[in-house]
Amino acid sequence: MKKEEFFSQIGQFKKRVYRKLPSIKHSIAFADNLVAFLFPVRLEIICQKPEKEFERLKLEFNSILMAMGYNEENAFEVSNDFMETMPDIYANLITDVSAIYEGDPAARSIEEIIITYPGFLATCIYRLAHELYKLQVPVMPRIFSEYAHSITGIDIHPGATIGQSFCIDHGTGIVIGETAEIGSHVKIYQGVTIGALSIQKNETSIKRHPTIKDHVIIYAGATILGGNTTVGENAIIGGNVWLIESVEPRSVVTHSHKVQIRQKKKN
Amino acid sequence: MKKEEFFSQIGQFKKRVYRKLPSIKHSIAFADNLVAFLFPVRLEIICQKPEKEFERLKLEFNSILMAMGYNEENAFEVSNDFMETMPDIYANLITDVSAIYEGDPAARSIEEIIITYPGFLATCIYRLAHELYKLQVPVMPRIFSEYAHSITGIDIHPGATIGQSFCIDHGTGIVIGETAEIGSHVKIYQGVTIGALSIQKNETSIKRHPTIKDHVIIYAGATILGGNTTVGENAIIGGNVWLIESVEPRSVVTHSHKVQIRQKKKN
Amino acid sequence: MKKEEFFSQIGQFKKRVYRKLPSIKHSIAFADNLVAFLFPVRLEIICQKPEKEFERLKLEFNSILMAMGYNEENAFEVSNDFMETMPDIYANLITDVSAIYEGDPAARSIEEIIITYPGFLATCIYRLAHELYKLQVPVMPRIFSEYAHSITGIDIHPGATIGQSFCIDHGTGIVIGETAEIGSHVKIYQGVTIGALSIQKNETSIKRHPTIKDHVIIYAGATILGGNTTVGENAIIGGNVWLIESVEPRSVVTHSHKVQIRQKKKN
Repeated sequence: MKKEEFFSQIGQFKKRVYRKLPSIKHSIAFADNLVAFLFPVRLEIICQKPEKEFERLKLEFNSILMAMGYNEENAFEVSNDFMETMPDIYANLITDVSAIYEGDPAARSIEEIIITYPGFLATCIYRLAHELYKLQVPVMPRIFSEYAHSITGIDIHPGATIGQSFCIDHGTGIVIGETAEIGSHVKIYQGVTIGALSIQKNETSIKRHPTIKDHVIIYAGATILGGNTTVGENAIIGGNVWLIESVEPRSVVTHSHKVQIRQKKKN
Repeated sequence: MKKEEFFSQIGQFKKRVYRKLPSIKHSIAFADNLVAFLFPVRLEIICQKPEKEFERLKLEFNSILMAMGYNEENAFEVSNDFMETMPDIYANLITDVSAIYEGDPAARSIEEIIITYPGFLATCIYRLAHELYKLQVPVMPRIFSEYAHSITGIDIHPGATIGQSFCIDHGTGIVIGETAEIGSHVKIYQGVTIGALSIQKNETSIKRHPTIKDHVIIYAGATILGGNTTVGENAIIGGNVWLIESVEPRSVVTHSHKVQIRQKKKN
Repeated sequence: MKKEEFFSQIGQFKKRVYRKLPSIKHSIAFADNLVAFLFPVRLEIICQKPEKEFERLKLEFNSILMAMGYNEENAFEVSNDFMETMPDIYANLITDVSAIYEGDPAARSIEEIIITYPGFLATCIYRLAHELYKLQVPVMPRIFSEYAHSITGIDIHPGATIGQSFCIDHGTGIVIGETAEIGSHVKIYQGVTIGALSIQKNETSIKRHPTIKDHVIIYAGATILGGNTTVGENAIIGGNVWLIESVEPRSVVTHSHKVQIRQKKKN
């Protein structure tokens, strides 16, 4: 590419996106502030009374939206609608903390989970991003989810739906796609993919990712693919399983882990 | 959840945890300062003479402990005991750097490893966190280990025991559980899990994770599970192997990697 | 280790590395500034006119090099040569964004990809690091690539060569080795390793990693190893495949994913 063309393209791009996209920096600060509001111990910002902080956060979101070109009325409505979901998000997150605590012998206290568990942080930011996604705020839900992804290695698309008492253990490498539907009391380990089989660009609006029913456990490295794949209630999916069709409730699905063992020759 | 209930729960949580937990921010700064003290090139904080920096770090830790509610005597004792482990931690880390250098044709110098290798950073912070764990400082060891996890994708529980000359290559996705026992001269690749088979909450105090003896190599994506599983000296565990029982010294364990190959139809 | 010995070793190390290595902090800031220059939306640094920012970045790099001990002439030449590669890096990155957009039904806009997709950020920083690697700037290319690795979980060695229209989806856990050669229009999913079979230290200068030809797709968790392994044009490598030998153009390689399904006993 010639240098003049190069400089000109950079300049054009700048003009095209100006005042249309959310600020990354302010979006991430807002995500941090929301988490610190819900769990005052996590980010140790000295919070005022919860009622006041709640109103302050609404104004913070309002400014981000107006800087993106929302008019006053829309910005007010969207920021208000979003903040009104906080009590229910909080109620869900309390069920998630309990599920993690019950499922991990290494967890010593609720506070340890809230402060240090990446699976909990990823779930927390997912639940916030999902509400932004439902309110159709552009790009910002993905900024939230990729922020969590960069910290935790856990990649949950904001469009996915996930029930209560969701438990992620370790978590690095988890991928959950946009149209996945996950029930309540589901437990997922590191390296699990709940993804798409087909990736045709024209399939944006159809269900491309699996449905996981209540009380399912999915062990490390399992891959479950396809919009027509349903894992029934109380099923157990073993480590490294590759699943592209539905299984009945109470199924136990295991991968054949045959290994060969031989002895090294003496040197 | 009703809004009044929501605000009230947030307020109660704040009171409950006040002055009991370590500051995340100060804990992470302390971890960074310790690493910069041991390897002055890594974080380029302008260090004073090592002897003086050593004393300053002791005081830094002391303040963190007192802010958690430790009394003066206990804070002094714990911070002193911790800092006295530095020379041995350093000696171990020097063996780790050498092991990484010997095992990686892409490594051009010792300094490159110290500055850029995530496997070395994760090992470094693990060795620090493990001493905090032995001194029973609450939550702080996990803040250290999850800090390393967030940077490197390598999740080593501070309770694990790991011998000298430990070599992690690439490392993203590695999980090493709380009661794992790993010998000396062990080499581990990305995506390896050394984990638990059972996850009963009442098993907190028993050995749930494997024992890996000296000079074992574990290739990418292998999973080794269970407190009764022992991998004998000089064994080699191949890529993607799934192992839930013990293997003899000098075993070579491989996964059957059968693949089907066919040709695409012409369009 | 005795304390005197410990302090003395730390002091010696400091002297040995002084003014030889690039500053980590300044290197990372430079990487961020380059990305913000190429895609003004990504890091929202208020850029001046592209032509001026281009000259400023050249001076920024120049200072980093001189602080590493480069003489004035060399620092000028290297920083100039590096900056002159920007238009071609930019042209390549534009092809990468398009490839990601075409390949992901969840992507709503080009801007969303530039702002939030970790695969794009990793590719962007790889293309910059690769030019530094070709100019033989010591350690700095690895600082760039490990910076991207820590944010994205994607580990691309700066020595690898990668063609246009490169598409990474999700990406956590990807490893691409130093001597890998990847063609154009290649698509790679999370957890893919393009790595070495042998790790003899004396093999630093030979080709240890595979060749991937144009229009190849490699699905999640596949492992391709060895310097003599070539994947032919238009081949498809399925999820979790383990491949250590060459395959013909248009091959479809799949892993046998047999699973056992049984029903849980009633409680």
